[in-house]
Amino acid sequence: MKEFFKVTNLKRVLEYASDFPRVETEEVPLSETAGRVLAEDVDADVDLPDFIRSSMDGFAVRASSTFGASEANPAYLSVTGSVNMGESPCFSIGIGQAARISTGGMLPEGADSVIMIEHTEAVDPTSIEVYRSVAPGQNILEKGEDIRKSAILVSAGKRLRAQETGLLAAFGQKKIRVYKKPVIGIISTGDEVVPIDETPGPGQIRDINMYTLSGLVKNTGAEPVTFGIVRDDVNDLLKKCTLALDKTDMVLISGGSSVGTRDFTIEVLTALPDAQILVHGISISPGKPTILAKSHRHAIWGLPGQVVSAMVVFEVVVKPFIEQIGGLSIKHKKEFRLPARLTRNISSSQGRADYIRVRLNRKNGVLWAEPILGKSGLINTMVKAHGLIEIGVNTEGLDKGAEVEVIPV
Amino acid sequence: MKEFFKVTNLKRVLEYASDFPRVETEEVPLSETAGRVLAEDVDADVDLPDFIRSSMDGFAVRASSTFGASEANPAYLSVTGSVNMGESPCFSIGIGQAARISTGGMLPEGADSVIMIEHTEAVDPTSIEVYRSVAPGQNILEKGEDIRKSAILVSAGKRLRAQETGLLAAFGQKKIRVYKKPVIGIISTGDEVVPIDETPGPGQIRDINMYTLSGLVKNTGAEPVTFGIVRDDVNDLLKKCTLALDKTDMVLISGGSSVGTRDFTIEVLTALPDAQILVHGISISPGKPTILAKSHRHAIWGLPGQVVSAMVVFEVVVKPFIEQIGGLSIKHKKEFRLPARLTRNISSSQGRADYIRVRLNRKNGVLWAEPILGKSGLINTMVKAHGLIEIGVNTEGLDKGAEVEVIPV
Repeated sequence: MKEFFKVTNLKRVLEYASDFPRVETEEVPLSETAGRVLAEDVDADVDLPDFIRSSMDGFAVRASSTFGASEANPAYLSVTGSVNMGESPCFSIGIGQAARISTGGMLPEGADSVIMIEHTEAVDPTSIEVYRSVAPGQNILEKGEDIRKSAILVSAGKRLRAQETGLLAAFGQKKIRVYKKPVIGIISTGDEVVPIDETPGPGQIRDINMYTLSGLVKNTGAEPVTFGIVRDDVNDLLKKCTLALDKTDMVLISGGSSVGTRDFTIEVLTALPDAQILVHGISISPGKPTILAKSHRHAIWGLPGQVVSAMVVFEVVVKPFIEQIGGLSIKHKKEFRLPARLTRNISSSQGRADYIRVRLNRKNGVLWAEPILGKSGLINTMVKAHGLIEIGVNTEGLDKGAEVEVIPV
Repeated sequence: MKEFFKVTNLKRVLEYASDFPRVETEEVPLSETAGRVLAEDVDADVDLPDFIRSSMDGFAVRASSTFGASEANPAYLSVTGSVNMGESPCFSIGIGQAARISTGGMLPEGADSVIMIEHTEAVDPTSIEVYRSVAPGQNILEKGEDIRKSAILVSAGKRLRAQETGLLAAFGQKKIRVYKKPVIGIISTGDEVVPIDETPGPGQIRDINMYTLSGLVKNTGAEPVTFGIVRDDVNDLLKKCTLALDKTDMVLISGGSSVGTRDFTIEVLTALPDAQILVHGISISPGKPTILAKSHRHAIWGLPGQVVSAMVVFEVVVKPFIEQIGGLSIKHKKEFRLPARLTRNISSSQGRADYIRVRLNRKNGVLWAEPILGKSGLINTMVKAHGLIEIGVNTEGLDKGAEVEVIPV
């Protein structure tokens, strides 16, 4: 038995991510920033809110006017005005006075709280009974209570969700500087692979990896660009790689990294300008025959041709590299894996990390992860799967009922 | 104290979803189907693979030629050929013979298994030593092992991930019939709301909801269309609603459903053609003053103006309606909430479901959910949050350490 390539452990492979520079930034309209990575801190130029607002529908009052009020012993207040939405009230509120106000309305001078409409009853058009007391500051949003002037609204390196977009809107940030979407070139190789619009002849198979990898690239917030299928020919692959490197930020070649064609892919990757082979084999399964090379500032991957292997390597290894060049900051990278329990014993080899496809089922409030075994050439196993679990390098296997963490796929 | 509207419980509200018809379908190129909902079952027209393939690099053999082989007692086989990728081998394999084959290669006639290259050693160009035995069927993919002819590849109502796209590619499905993306109209109301490119005057605030709701709509796989801000004027809102209903599949109005303006919104919704008010108040917090109306076949929502309330109602109530009209099948709706433990006691009122913003932290392998308290007008509380937890209608509160399930936001 012989070892064909010297494998690198996963941790070391992931450390190479910081060798690759981030992509450039661009300004985009706020409405197009969902899922994009912020490129620079954005500060608050004013307080939010910038005036004292009511957080309820009711009456703006001085709290002291309501002290001691109860159902049995209501306070009587005279209604001296109504706050119009979006306007600064032109009157003030004294002891024993109240002004109608809606949620979001600006508190009049002299008022320090709002009594909810539900806790009042109109006596006549100009007076109300109040059945509860309020404390100063109750049912209002103080100036700056949401965000204080000069605070950082959102910091660089964060992927923007709906709420960050909303916060930026509150501060009138029409144009936002974000990292460009990393452009990822995808090349399929193999004499047996035909485009999906062809009917495969004997021994041929349609190109699956181009579609699965494109989908995964999109999930990562990047832009896939496909370069078609290259026959097993050194010159053709070299030409295609050169083109892809020129047009993209990172290149994924699938199919050329198993023993059968690896020398050939290595030959091409070595021939690229300023080439360096960083990794030739990773201590994970599936996905061991993965190659990582660097040409100038770009990463080029030789991914396994087997569809499941290529998807696992993408999730576990390639994705953090795309996130790195795409500007995502590690401190903002919050990915929570789903805790679950294994439905059965599962064995594993020491010395490598195993990634097992699992299907999730909820039974009696417990999430169970059922391993889906099957060769890594079977795409249906990924279709059945909801996620992957990792069995660590130093673990020989896991028992039924063991707690695992599921990476959704 | 008086009740302003008769609230409907959440379960009943969600049942109304099936009253709304699904959007139409369209054919899109396979490369654009990621995240789309499949509109019709797709069947396998052939077996996948359609021929017996090697799942390893090595030698195609008859398993019986290797029986009893070991390191100490290797079997000797003569190499009679090489399988070219993408071709049907023009030779067959007999007892004592082997053919070089790569992963994905087509098995020659007579071979029933593949011996991994790692378990062989070349003796000379035409013979090898074999150090292990293989069983018939080992290291190969049988015809139809991935998918059998006539099986359903992907069934209608499923949201397509990268792997489903790959499976459809394997069967040459260039064009896929999916549900159209539901188009969701968004209208902001309120005299205090100004567009984000204006500087708010005293008592004014920029339009946040248009951005948060657009982001959430996109997360749901739908298309937001914004209709700007409508002043608190019945005719203007009626005109804008009519326009939005005409151009979209569902309309979200934010800001007009709290007590201050609710009569006004109700008046407009009632005036719409074939109008029916289905829900006027939901027993959830925040989000109680939510209105659901139906005009012809379309849903129109009156969402709270408070940013957090509107986001919570969207996640908990509106999203399932968009998924319903977008064709997502309940059986394919797999959303797994993150189990976590509460960092502290939290109280709640009986008779309504409370949604609490939480921030997640992992400590010693346990995921902790830390409640973020704060008024529902404060967007920074959603920016800090990783998710929501639900405290059910019949629960008065939860203790520190209680197990909760987190809905990611």
